[in-house]
Amino acid sequence: MAGMTTREDCVRADAADPLATLREEFSLPDGLIYLDGNSLGPAPRRARARAEELVAQEWGEGLIGSWNTAGWYDLPGRLGDRLAPLIGAEPGQTVVCDTTSANLFKVLACALRIAGQDSPGRRVVLSEPDNFPTDLYVAAGLTEQLGDGYALRRLSSRGPDGSDPTTWLDAGLTEDVAVLLLSHVNYRTGAMWDLAEVTARAHARGVLVVWDLAHSVGAVPVDLTGADADFAVGCTYKYLNGGPGSPAFLWASPRHRDRFSSPLSGWWGHARPFAMEPDFEPAPGVTRFLSGTPPVVSLALVEGGLDIAGRASMDQVRAKSLALGDLMIERVRERCADHPVGLVTPTEPVRRGSQLSFTHPEAYAIVSALIDRRVVGDYREPQVMRFGLTPLYLRFVDVFDAVETLAQVLDHRSWDAPQFRTRATVT
Amino acid sequence: MAGMTTREDCVRADAADPLATLREEFSLPDGLIYLDGNSLGPAPRRARARAEELVAQEWGEGLIGSWNTAGWYDLPGRLGDRLAPLIGAEPGQTVVCDTTSANLFKVLACALRIAGQDSPGRRVVLSEPDNFPTDLYVAAGLTEQLGDGYALRRLSSRGPDGSDPTTWLDAGLTEDVAVLLLSHVNYRTGAMWDLAEVTARAHARGVLVVWDLAHSVGAVPVDLTGADADFAVGCTYKYLNGGPGSPAFLWASPRHRDRFSSPLSGWWGHARPFAMEPDFEPAPGVTRFLSGTPPVVSLALVEGGLDIAGRASMDQVRAKSLALGDLMIERVRERCADHPVGLVTPTEPVRRGSQLSFTHPEAYAIVSALIDRRVVGDYREPQVMRFGLTPLYLRFVDVFDAVETLAQVLDHRSWDAPQFRTRATVT
Repeated sequence: MAGMTTREDCVRADAADPLATLREEFSLPDGLIYLDGNSLGPAPRRARARAEELVAQEWGEGLIGSWNTAGWYDLPGRLGDRLAPLIGAEPGQTVVCDTTSANLFKVLACALRIAGQDSPGRRVVLSEPDNFPTDLYVAAGLTEQLGDGYALRRLSSRGPDGSDPTTWLDAGLTEDVAVLLLSHVNYRTGAMWDLAEVTARAHARGVLVVWDLAHSVGAVPVDLTGADADFAVGCTYKYLNGGPGSPAFLWASPRHRDRFSSPLSGWWGHARPFAMEPDFEPAPGVTRFLSGTPPVVSLALVEGGLDIAGRASMDQVRAKSLALGDLMIERVRERCADHPVGLVTPTEPVRRGSQLSFTHPEAYAIVSALIDRRVVGDYREPQVMRFGLTPLYLRFVDVFDAVETLAQVLDHRSWDAPQFRTRATVT
Repeated sequence: MAGMTTREDCVRADAADPLATLREEFSLPDGLIYLDGNSLGPAPRRARARAEELVAQEWGEGLIGSWNTAGWYDLPGRLGDRLAPLIGAEPGQTVVCDTTSANLFKVLACALRIAGQDSPGRRVVLSEPDNFPTDLYVAAGLTEQLGDGYALRRLSSRGPDGSDPTTWLDAGLTEDVAVLLLSHVNYRTGAMWDLAEVTARAHARGVLVVWDLAHSVGAVPVDLTGADADFAVGCTYKYLNGGPGSPAFLWASPRHRDRFSSPLSGWWGHARPFAMEPDFEPAPGVTRFLSGTPPVVSLALVEGGLDIAGRASMDQVRAKSLALGDLMIERVRERCADHPVGLVTPTEPVRRGSQLSFTHPEAYAIVSALIDRRVVGDYREPQVMRFGLTPLYLRFVDVFDAVETLAQVLDHRSWDAPQFRTRATVT
């Protein structure tokens, strides 16, 4: 952000920030700078009372009747409709249920089936080797289960010169490709695909696209309808602040409505689940992608995060996200110039999500030392420090102070202590 | 229960009940007789404080660090080990994750693969048309996805004389059957299979067995190891009181350990999930059946129900369950003799689960009228009134009073009012 070089500049920017008041909606420990909202968003302040209400009133007092009286039954679709504006969807096209992995399995199976009906020779799922691992694992598991020529192809989009998405797509979208499976924003690098452009390019080659929005929903503008996209899945516990492991979402284009199908055909996807009919008759529309009984407490807590997201305009969120990023890039350049810190994330706004990733040979220990100083980012293999920039609750001064702390850790080699080099189970 | 014909007899039985004190561990509304714990168990009294702690401390204060410090990461296996004694499993064989539907999809796919390796001609899943619908739907979805001769066969086990399981199995276990898929206790009728006998009979015919324990775990003794069973799934929100839609469990016999596989191969089933490797390397043992990030709040609340279950001996639970059932059968015979009430559940203990099901042409309206009088059972198609008998918190007087209320509703045709005949979304 041009001109924001002192802490006072940042204080002024915070005072002028139209999103500043939303920070009060979150429960954030005093003195903590939380740059890991791209992994697990913080708790909305109202989540505690809502959890109490869910357990003490709805479960405790309402018991089985709460499926109707407390609206548990409609939660997957109701939350999907609340989420819809964040992904450019219309009501009735999105459900919140299961995990991102399970939802990906479902829509990928559906997309492969549709592709197979239109072009029996297309049986390949194309992705990148540095897509989020569970996406690759699920695609591999599904195609291996299908056998019969179905396969996952992982083609690196990173050329020696960095990257050239256009060249990659032209090379990768061959005539045997059925589905292109991409993460909109890469979990490790923070690089972002142009969702509309990639979708159009794939469609022009007769290829369907499944988007994983886990690292973009709530953080960058997404317009699935405008892009004429096919399928999308994503996560509610990162930028949407739904709670640890909160259920994921699934969107499917009404264009494919007549051919929706899910191999995970559980009773919640039935047209009349409580009629207890022996044959599966799929519910209309996206509802048929539901499967088993959802985890109500975790599911209902998603609403609190969506409430807050609904109070911000995505344009303001995006503008602040880029400004926070620009500030961090500038401050790191200025304060960490003497250290082998490399920026992995593309700087062009059109190619950048809402996190910044930096490399350093001692990245793991540095992240640990920062956490010890109450600046929370995280580490990703190999040698990557990730910092999530979350406009709903992060201040410009937080970014300024975080970089100051990083500079001190680097200048004093504070990371070079045994306690920072020991790997925990989850990093 | 012989001789328990007055309310005073029931009061005496409650005073002598070794499980009586456990009722205090549950949050139960005053004056409510809850006979629906076979659908959704009530909240443990400590669940409210635990939910607050999860949201305010673990999520709110601990944030991302709670994956390690609060033990979120180990929850699926730790809860599985807590649950293990209830199903006759050893530690390390059970995980709590996903939904019953998703878990069934996973183990059924694994069982079919194992069967196919041993006997390529076996591609049929045998079940009953009155198995729990989601089991049939999932088996149909999976076999339809596999194609290539895989199929679900639904063969009725109910002969004109009622039922003859032995004859049914002898007829059904043909040479093309790969897997027998059964619910241990039937959700509608409360009838129970002899798990060990059926498993042995299937094995003798070269057929693997997948058991759905949703309506038996925590309510009747289950010994998967003793029965030399293959795979099992089940539910934690019924007799285990884990909360609405709380994650399900999955058990897999160590006998098949070398051939465990899951098509839903998400990152939580990876040997090193946070190494972010591009190739899926399955975790050892049952852990590889994990898939996506679990819904932590709903998952962690399962522990409270298991805590209480762990304080009761299953022999005492079973003895009380049968005594509650005998009392109810006897009281209904005495008090409802003038009405067309039929008992669906087998009376022999070896064939009876922990619920009683009665038919009546106006079952739906009667259940509604009972709920209006604060006696909560539920309705299942067609014309079945279900009453769950849950020894951890139900008293003999509750059963006595419930039947008195039922008799009054029948004698006065109280059910014959419009408000009791209107169907709600979920019944």
